[in-house]
Amino acid sequence: MQNLAAVMTDLNTIEIRDVGVGQLGPNDAMVRIETVGVCGSDAAYFTAGRIGDWIVDGPFILGHESAGVVTAVGEQVSAVQPGDRVAIEPGTPCRNCDQCRAGRYHLCPDLAFLATPPFDGSLQQQLVIDHRCLFPMPDAMSFEQGALLEPLSVGIWACRRAGLQPGEDVLVSGAGPVGVLAAQVARALGARRVLITDLNQARLDLAAGFGLETAQPADSHDPEFDVLLECSGAPGALEAGLWRLRPGGRATVVGIPKKPAAIPFAELTPRELSIFVIHRYNNTWPAAMALVASGRVQTDGLVTGEFPLAETATALLQARTNPDSMKSVIYPQR
Amino acid sequence: MQNLAAVMTDLNTIEIRDVGVGQLGPNDAMVRIETVGVCGSDAAYFTAGRIGDWIVDGPFILGHESAGVVTAVGEQVSAVQPGDRVAIEPGTPCRNCDQCRAGRYHLCPDLAFLATPPFDGSLQQQLVIDHRCLFPMPDAMSFEQGALLEPLSVGIWACRRAGLQPGEDVLVSGAGPVGVLAAQVARALGARRVLITDLNQARLDLAAGFGLETAQPADSHDPEFDVLLECSGAPGALEAGLWRLRPGGRATVVGIPKKPAAIPFAELTPRELSIFVIHRYNNTWPAAMALVASGRVQTDGLVTGEFPLAETATALLQARTNPDSMKSVIYPQR
Amino acid sequence: MQNLAAVMTDLNTIEIRDVGVGQLGPNDAMVRIETVGVCGSDAAYFTAGRIGDWIVDGPFILGHESAGVVTAVGEQVSAVQPGDRVAIEPGTPCRNCDQCRAGRYHLCPDLAFLATPPFDGSLQQQLVIDHRCLFPMPDAMSFEQGALLEPLSVGIWACRRAGLQPGEDVLVSGAGPVGVLAAQVARALGARRVLITDLNQARLDLAAGFGLETAQPADSHDPEFDVLLECSGAPGALEAGLWRLRPGGRATVVGIPKKPAAIPFAELTPRELSIFVIHRYNNTWPAAMALVASGRVQTDGLVTGEFPLAETATALLQARTNPDSMKSVIYPQR
Amino acid sequence: MQNLAAVMTDLNTIEIRDVGVGQLGPNDAMVRIETVGVCGSDAAYFTAGRIGDWIVDGPFILGHESAGVVTAVGEQVSAVQPGDRVAIEPGTPCRNCDQCRAGRYHLCPDLAFLATPPFDGSLQQQLVIDHRCLFPMPDAMSFEQGALLEPLSVGIWACRRAGLQPGEDVLVSGAGPVGVLAAQVARALGARRVLITDLNQARLDLAAGFGLETAQPADSHDPEFDVLLECSGAPGALEAGLWRLRPGGRATVVGIPKKPAAIPFAELTPRELSIFVIHRYNNTWPAAMALVASGRVQTDGLVTGEFPLAETATALLQARTNPDSMKSVIYPQR
Repeated sequence: MQNLAAVMTDLNTIEIRDVGVGQLGPNDAMVRIETVGVCGSDAAYFTAGRIGDWIVDGPFILGHESAGVVTAVGEQVSAVQPGDRVAIEPGTPCRNCDQCRAGRYHLCPDLAFLATPPFDGSLQQQLVIDHRCLFPMPDAMSFEQGALLEPLSVGIWACRRAGLQPGEDVLVSGAGPVGVLAAQVARALGARRVLITDLNQARLDLAAGFGLETAQPADSHDPEFDVLLECSGAPGALEAGLWRLRPGGRATVVGIPKKPAAIPFAELTPRELSIFVIHRYNNTWPAAMALVASGRVQTDGLVTGEFPLAETATALLQARTNPDSMKSVIYPQR
Repeated sequence: MQNLAAVMTDLNTIEIRDVGVGQLGPNDAMVRIETVGVCGSDAAYFTAGRIGDWIVDGPFILGHESAGVVTAVGEQVSAVQPGDRVAIEPGTPCRNCDQCRAGRYHLCPDLAFLATPPFDGSLQQQLVIDHRCLFPMPDAMSFEQGALLEPLSVGIWACRRAGLQPGEDVLVSGAGPVGVLAAQVARALGARRVLITDLNQARLDLAAGFGLETAQPADSHDPEFDVLLECSGAPGALEAGLWRLRPGGRATVVGIPKKPAAIPFAELTPRELSIFVIHRYNNTWPAAMALVASGRVQTDGLVTGEFPLAETATALLQARTNPDSMKSVIYPQR
Repeated sequence: MQNLAAVMTDLNTIEIRDVGVGQLGPNDAMVRIETVGVCGSDAAYFTAGRIGDWIVDGPFILGHESAGVVTAVGEQVSAVQPGDRVAIEPGTPCRNCDQCRAGRYHLCPDLAFLATPPFDGSLQQQLVIDHRCLFPMPDAMSFEQGALLEPLSVGIWACRRAGLQPGEDVLVSGAGPVGVLAAQVARALGARRVLITDLNQARLDLAAGFGLETAQPADSHDPEFDVLLECSGAPGALEAGLWRLRPGGRATVVGIPKKPAAIPFAELTPRELSIFVIHRYNNTWPAAMALVASGRVQTDGLVTGEFPLAETATALLQARTNPDSMKSVIYPQR
Repeated sequence: MQNLAAVMTDLNTIEIRDVGVGQLGPNDAMVRIETVGVCGSDAAYFTAGRIGDWIVDGPFILGHESAGVVTAVGEQVSAVQPGDRVAIEPGTPCRNCDQCRAGRYHLCPDLAFLATPPFDGSLQQQLVIDHRCLFPMPDAMSFEQGALLEPLSVGIWACRRAGLQPGEDVLVSGAGPVGVLAAQVARALGARRVLITDLNQARLDLAAGFGLETAQPADSHDPEFDVLLECSGAPGALEAGLWRLRPGGRATVVGIPKKPAAIPFAELTPRELSIFVIHRYNNTWPAAMALVASGRVQTDGLVTGEFPLAETATALLQARTNPDSMKSVIYPQR
């Protein structure tokens, strides 16, 4: 059975080739991948070959925001059936370690996560994956929406880590796909005011289209917010956002700054802030599915680029170079 | 200054008379009351003269779901101004006891709460109340909506006490005003499935109009839900609802059953449930205001009866006798 | 290899016979069982043949409070070695279901738990069990203490479920082994006042020996406590204890009353209590081990009866009939 | 009535003079101050005249760790009586703002806190203070212990903010008075392993005397701990400690570094850490009192210097210059 994949063979180089299909274990399913969203991490691996301690070593398949149709299931699988349209959670934990046992499966040291070395990703036509990563989609949900449940999950987890309570005021810095989705999540979880900021006016305009309050980042020390969701990863963005939190405020670090952030604890102490790092998500697909299916989170206009598999390299490069691009989607079956 | 009030002078008896206006303390405001929702507790005091240890002793003014317009403010008040349209939180805590200090001001033993003996309620034309109970309403919010923020607050607090998480499935038993509002809150806080049940089909039809899934109560032991919001107070409703919770499920007791509930802990132990009693609410008006103002909680059709002050007795009796009645509103200025 | 076990062949009947050793799976270990504490549930199965929906059907081995020495390990086991002295957590979860994934492995519907039908218990000389149930003991810890980590775990979980905070006042009703251990846990987690009550003065005297404040149960409605740990299971004990909680108080149902408890929600509502059912425990062995090893929880005098394997029936019956008995221990190697 | 106080009249200058007694309001008590512990913040004000935005402007009285005997009470005070030996919580909140209402009274913007400009401290013979700041001490508790409840409260709050759970492993960096007390708190709240580190061997030896495991700070990236209590404020200490946390670990910033801390979020993201700033404490005196009264927290040897009021300047300077000094106590009545 042929299985074309976009294989990263070198920095900035993609080769489309038949990689064959993986072996279907008893708990696995095979999924015909219909959509793969391009994430900043894909672009980073593509252009730099590494993220932190994760290093691309040899041919590598990118992609972890994906949806598709089940085409086969292993012998012990009954929860999904061939023909099911599914969104895919990219991580498979060991289920045995202390972290898994504590319910923090996303921090499992042996987590097999799509497109995180040494594990290949979903930019292929037929993906074999543990069936417990698959979440059946309602008929009305598109494959693009299915793929967007992954960045949406980041937003949900950010709000949960921050302990967002109904009626609180939320500042979201960074109006990329994760920021726009996180801002909508905050609203969908009962926030009072949600303000999203970005230097890029086009992104703010898009955010405004979702009914969000928007602004350019302000150099303000006014404590107007209870929660900060820092989604830009821009230098200084976390530090700037902390100043806008009320006493008792909580910040989540969603965008990862490349260099260490200089946190002025001496000045911030009287506000007794809490800072929560976010690493992916934990058990968010049911919520993500519900929020999109019911329209509480909107996705119209988020997909700003569509590419066949053969144009994967173009899609990856554009994610790095086009600041107005929001989310590019690659279609492995085209 | 004249101040007509609906004074309960005996069981089932209301007399409209001028009670004069209260003295305006430095932290008080005077509010021209425009709307007063009728609550089951008002009707209970009216017909039975007591709720638990709270006993009506002498002439008494009912009403605690209210909104109006500020007409005067004490010398130390700057947060609200005459002319402000405001919704009213009915309780004023002592601010000094252990409960207040711990942030549980709603459990303050000295809480002065409208229409809870010995404190008179808001069924009067000019109410003097601590200004910190007042929450300015946006222009587009009606006085009826302002009054409904009180039962809505019960629903918000029920969800918070239950620790409702996004993506969870919620069963709401009882489709009266609190149940319908609580169900909408659960949805507005990210619930996946929200099912509301009632024996009264007319109430279910109304609930369905808000986009809620509805059903007659089922004698089911299928554990399909993560959270139960028991809003009916009907005998056996809590017990029945507990059987429908998944292991780890949480129930809130919003409707108060008159007789003790027989909880079969032996059978329920393997599910390790949690049961949370609800007493009013804590710091919910900002959230309630935001949810209604943004349309995340809908109120159309909830008000099923409108009464001038002179017809207060009729309004109170109807709340007890007409099962299809949802929320009656009394207008002290009419 | 011979493996003598105490096999329950009928109600009130134990037969000592060689049951052979179980097969050692790759993740299993074999443990020479040195101590098995007798739990009320063992006695209940022995005399009644069932607990709720768990029914003894055919020959059955009791016992789940146990410690011993590792004698062999499966091929994939490196965390424990032959010769290790270990305490045993009795439950092995499926690691795959929603409950396991959420970190609530103790609520796993497929939990294999020692001496809970259809799973045999530890009243045998050589137990084969998943090695992840084994916790190496320090040299100074006795096998009796190792077995007591199981009821101690119940006490730890009860305090965790109640959200016990340092400085809070705790009422423990029931001075059996679980109550006495739970009371010591409350103290070891920073409680201010810990009062333990029981009708049995001998048990209170034993509790006093651990430095605990003791009293006969009082028919009091004085709200003096923040947390209730109901460990007696006696009729009415939960209801009585709830009346002694302050507003905002939390109760855990550790002892399981046979008949439904009649909870007077109407009277208790103004206190806004929370009631937490307890089912076993979750991830408590590390804490239990630390508390006993450091002396923060004392066990001297808790073991009031010692029996060789051949006297298992006597030990089980005595647990039911001798009210002064605290914990009986059976020694399978004697 | 004479009231001698140690008045800071200029940088590094103390003048002992009669400042008269304050006016006793209806909710106030007057306390004959017996002990005042010297805190690093006292020394900082003394030598630098400011901490962050708090600036000493004019004659100023230092001291906020204190205990004494009630000598008079205001007309509305019944909770304490003249003759009561009391420990003193130094902050009086407004009780009216959003923070107070939310139970975070320690973040009240109008908190009147002893020895924080513009509020004078307790280095005087007769202190007038709101009686709700006073906590009666058992007879066996010394005034030195009463004063130590303040730094102990910091340790309690640090553990609470970190959400310390029984059985967790805790790293405490910095073996000054707060560190040594915080480490004992961690143990008293059920921690498994508590390691305290410091460059100063004399401090480690003292800590070892409390039964604590001690070590020089290690340049290790081994994730061995669940919780970090950074109590040194030393440059780089927080960053170093974060590397020693397991995935899901939590750090509290107790010692305040003067310069911004450079937090390498990129490297730390996969551990999904949480960082909690600590500002004083909230409702910790009951717990602090219980822990010291019961011996769960030991104080022997912590007081390394004793000074009469006239030697206040010496005491303050020594706190800055003598690295082996732990806690100096000033006795206003000597």
